[in-house]
Amino acid sequence: MADTRFFHRTGPYTLGHIASITGATIERGSVDLILNDIAPLDLAGPGQLSFLDNVRYRDSYRASNAAACFVAPEMVEHAPEGMALLVTKTPYKANALAAQAFYPDIWPQSRIAKSATIDPTAKIGEGCIIEENVVIGADVELGKGTWIEANTVIGASCVLGDRCRIGSNVTLSHCHIGQATRIYPGARIGQDGFGFAIDPSGFVKVPQLGRVMIGVHVEIGANTTIDRGASGDTVIGDGCWIDNLVQLGHNVKLGRGCVIVAQVGIAGSTIFDDYVVVGGQAGFAGHLKVGKGARIGAQSGVMRDVPAGAEVMGFPAIAIKQFMRQAAILNKMTKSKDKK
Amino acid sequence: MADTRFFHRTGPYTLGHIASITGATIERGSVDLILNDIAPLDLAGPGQLSFLDNVRYRDSYRASNAAACFVAPEMVEHAPEGMALLVTKTPYKANALAAQAFYPDIWPQSRIAKSATIDPTAKIGEGCIIEENVVIGADVELGKGTWIEANTVIGASCVLGDRCRIGSNVTLSHCHIGQATRIYPGARIGQDGFGFAIDPSGFVKVPQLGRVMIGVHVEIGANTTIDRGASGDTVIGDGCWIDNLVQLGHNVKLGRGCVIVAQVGIAGSTIFDDYVVVGGQAGFAGHLKVGKGARIGAQSGVMRDVPAGAEVMGFPAIAIKQFMRQAAILNKMTKSKDKK
Amino acid sequence: MADTRFFHRTGPYTLGHIASITGATIERGSVDLILNDIAPLDLAGPGQLSFLDNVRYRDSYRASNAAACFVAPEMVEHAPEGMALLVTKTPYKANALAAQAFYPDIWPQSRIAKSATIDPTAKIGEGCIIEENVVIGADVELGKGTWIEANTVIGASCVLGDRCRIGSNVTLSHCHIGQATRIYPGARIGQDGFGFAIDPSGFVKVPQLGRVMIGVHVEIGANTTIDRGASGDTVIGDGCWIDNLVQLGHNVKLGRGCVIVAQVGIAGSTIFDDYVVVGGQAGFAGHLKVGKGARIGAQSGVMRDVPAGAEVMGFPAIAIKQFMRQAAILNKMTKSKDKK
Repeated sequence: MADTRFFHRTGPYTLGHIASITGATIERGSVDLILNDIAPLDLAGPGQLSFLDNVRYRDSYRASNAAACFVAPEMVEHAPEGMALLVTKTPYKANALAAQAFYPDIWPQSRIAKSATIDPTAKIGEGCIIEENVVIGADVELGKGTWIEANTVIGASCVLGDRCRIGSNVTLSHCHIGQATRIYPGARIGQDGFGFAIDPSGFVKVPQLGRVMIGVHVEIGANTTIDRGASGDTVIGDGCWIDNLVQLGHNVKLGRGCVIVAQVGIAGSTIFDDYVVVGGQAGFAGHLKVGKGARIGAQSGVMRDVPAGAEVMGFPAIAIKQFMRQAAILNKMTKSKDKK
Repeated sequence: MADTRFFHRTGPYTLGHIASITGATIERGSVDLILNDIAPLDLAGPGQLSFLDNVRYRDSYRASNAAACFVAPEMVEHAPEGMALLVTKTPYKANALAAQAFYPDIWPQSRIAKSATIDPTAKIGEGCIIEENVVIGADVELGKGTWIEANTVIGASCVLGDRCRIGSNVTLSHCHIGQATRIYPGARIGQDGFGFAIDPSGFVKVPQLGRVMIGVHVEIGANTTIDRGASGDTVIGDGCWIDNLVQLGHNVKLGRGCVIVAQVGIAGSTIFDDYVVVGGQAGFAGHLKVGKGARIGAQSGVMRDVPAGAEVMGFPAIAIKQFMRQAAILNKMTKSKDKK
Repeated sequence: MADTRFFHRTGPYTLGHIASITGATIERGSVDLILNDIAPLDLAGPGQLSFLDNVRYRDSYRASNAAACFVAPEMVEHAPEGMALLVTKTPYKANALAAQAFYPDIWPQSRIAKSATIDPTAKIGEGCIIEENVVIGADVELGKGTWIEANTVIGASCVLGDRCRIGSNVTLSHCHIGQATRIYPGARIGQDGFGFAIDPSGFVKVPQLGRVMIGVHVEIGANTTIDRGASGDTVIGDGCWIDNLVQLGHNVKLGRGCVIVAQVGIAGSTIFDDYVVVGGQAGFAGHLKVGKGARIGAQSGVMRDVPAGAEVMGFPAIAIKQFMRQAAILNKMTKSKDKK
């Protein structure tokens, strides 16, 4: 269903092949059924594979003309006649894997554009793709097969691992980036943090002498900004997903697998344990600790430490149940006033 | 009054000409009165045209030395002696049209910079302006007279209409852009949205197989980010105005003429009908519907659908009147505690 | 302690020299004690200088192996044996000055990259550094020793003072910038503000005919956006510090020495007096006045004028004491409901 002007489709694949690469079980349909594309339930037709992940879309599922569908076990009985069924507890993930098969992430051939400026002391790994007008400073090291898109600037001494992809118009400085990490267009990583001492004659800049250390398989969104450490490092753990327009101050440390939705701001020296999830536009004061697996609601303002596993929301952020109760009480108060 | 170092002024124009291009009626003053510039009420002098749009500035109006002024009918009686009057129900708009006449939006001569890199398969319309270090990918199509400012990158297969203006340091990919649309510097349009499935071994990326479809006469602000659809498209309707640092997630759809003020964030798959207005820093959860002409206050957190014509505010967003009443009740409660 | 891959350390320096450049008094230790680096209290060892600014870190101080330490007078008695002491009322500032000595801000040699495009009418001061793919428009003026990093675009007629540093991938237009001002990567300064008049047939653009006037010793963060004035100028006073991802609308005026933390948004025509401090993600409606030295809490939504010296917080922003009391009352209300 994707526009082939922009996306290259492979296949077709048999139902059996799709089952094998996704771990789903064929509940109905022939192993040899030919599938040539993926599509949403309401648009899918013959030869197309779909998925049902949310009960909200059950009616679309019942009416769908998809040739095959990923479904949870409990949805099998609601399937329309003639639809092949691939049963899995994780239909969304199975569909992601099938989509990766039909539309693989194809990288360009290795090349170094003539208009790129690469300092002679930089070490460029085998098979890199370095596009137009890229500027690479002294002593930079790029791993094998790393892709630097056009008009990006990589400051002196940065180290990037293998198979990284750095989008266009990005600025990197004072950083180490692990393998297979992806930075989206316009991100700014490694600039001086916001550090000054107050003086009667104005502000005295505090030299920012740390780095940004980014793990492997990290995603960092478009126009996001990550300042380097003031003393010691700013750290992004392996497998973190950071969305667009996020601000991370100096010496922020994120554990492994954290998810930070768009426009979040985290002030300096706040430390996240692993698997913390933060909704969009939330903000964190500096020098806080956020425990493992904590979940922070969108737009929250976090002013205190958050224990592991806690779910908080609001400003100042409180337990999500308490937040909902406050909102309900306030609504009731204003409504009873209406009646007077 | 504009600095002619930066702006080119034309004219002079007669009062009659100004009336004719703005639709205002000459209430006082000669058709042949010569006007050679526009200026604010408090700074305007002989030969200068001003406007009164806000009663707050009535004193400036009464004391103004402007040669002529756009005013609403009810303000005629408060005019100072000797001031020519152009009466209109929309003085702000009339002044905008007069400003466009005195300071026309002048575009440079058509040219293609030598340092631009244009893929040989790209189709460049007549009269385009392509500035330094622009990179244009394979199969891109640019309409007639479109202007691409320096250091901008346009990914493969993008289609832009006639007379678009794309600012400097912009990144475009996977998008169609209608005619006369303007994108400001540093915007990022068409990158992958924030889509992943959770897996015990980490996150599985969901291929983002949609596009960004942008209408005609749209404005998209500096450093704004618009992700492409995951499956199906992200859509920006004709005539939308989007300010700086806005985040639009995958599959967001905006109707015609929506106004989105700076730093707003809209999560994936939320759909706006036409003429929705959103104040700065507001946020929207995903998968919501916002009805025609709804108005969302600044910093609101919208977690539910908003009906057509509704005005909401706060977090969670509620009817604006109720929001104001809550604030008043809370103030009263804290003040009565003060007295104890 | 800084990674010498990225930072160049000078020295060593004697305790006496450090005392003389920071204004601290040697309370304990030899004037000739040799110091060769700075380090945090818990990591510092022989030959290393540290500081104690926050009582929270008193235990680290007592256990520290630092050779010398900046401390406030009242902390002298808690010092570990053998540690040289530099007494000052401002240990954080003293440490900043020492850090500047050990790690001076070294600029590259003057040069103009071959790939830079400089209009022949531009005036480039002596000793400038103009990096790769920079584009400088007609009639631009750069002061002496100003540094323009790679892939930055400076529009026609902009004027920059001496010793400015403009980061990479920046866009400047319609602006004057005072000496020793620093703009971080990806900032967008001088584009059209968000100005339109509403018309039945759509929106009528209001020509934006002002400039952005930026003082001396200003810092403007990464990916921050500052629109030019609509009529008259947007103004940033001397010595302001503006963090990343901040949005300043047309005709905003900041006095001297204001501090604006990341992701703040200030709507058009709002005016700050001197030394206003704004926490992260706060927002301001347009046309407000904020008095000298006012302090605005993070995430506040300011909808009214703020008097000089006031401290406000919340949405809508109220006096910080009242805000804290509201939060406490709401907590109590929800908790008493728990008991029922």
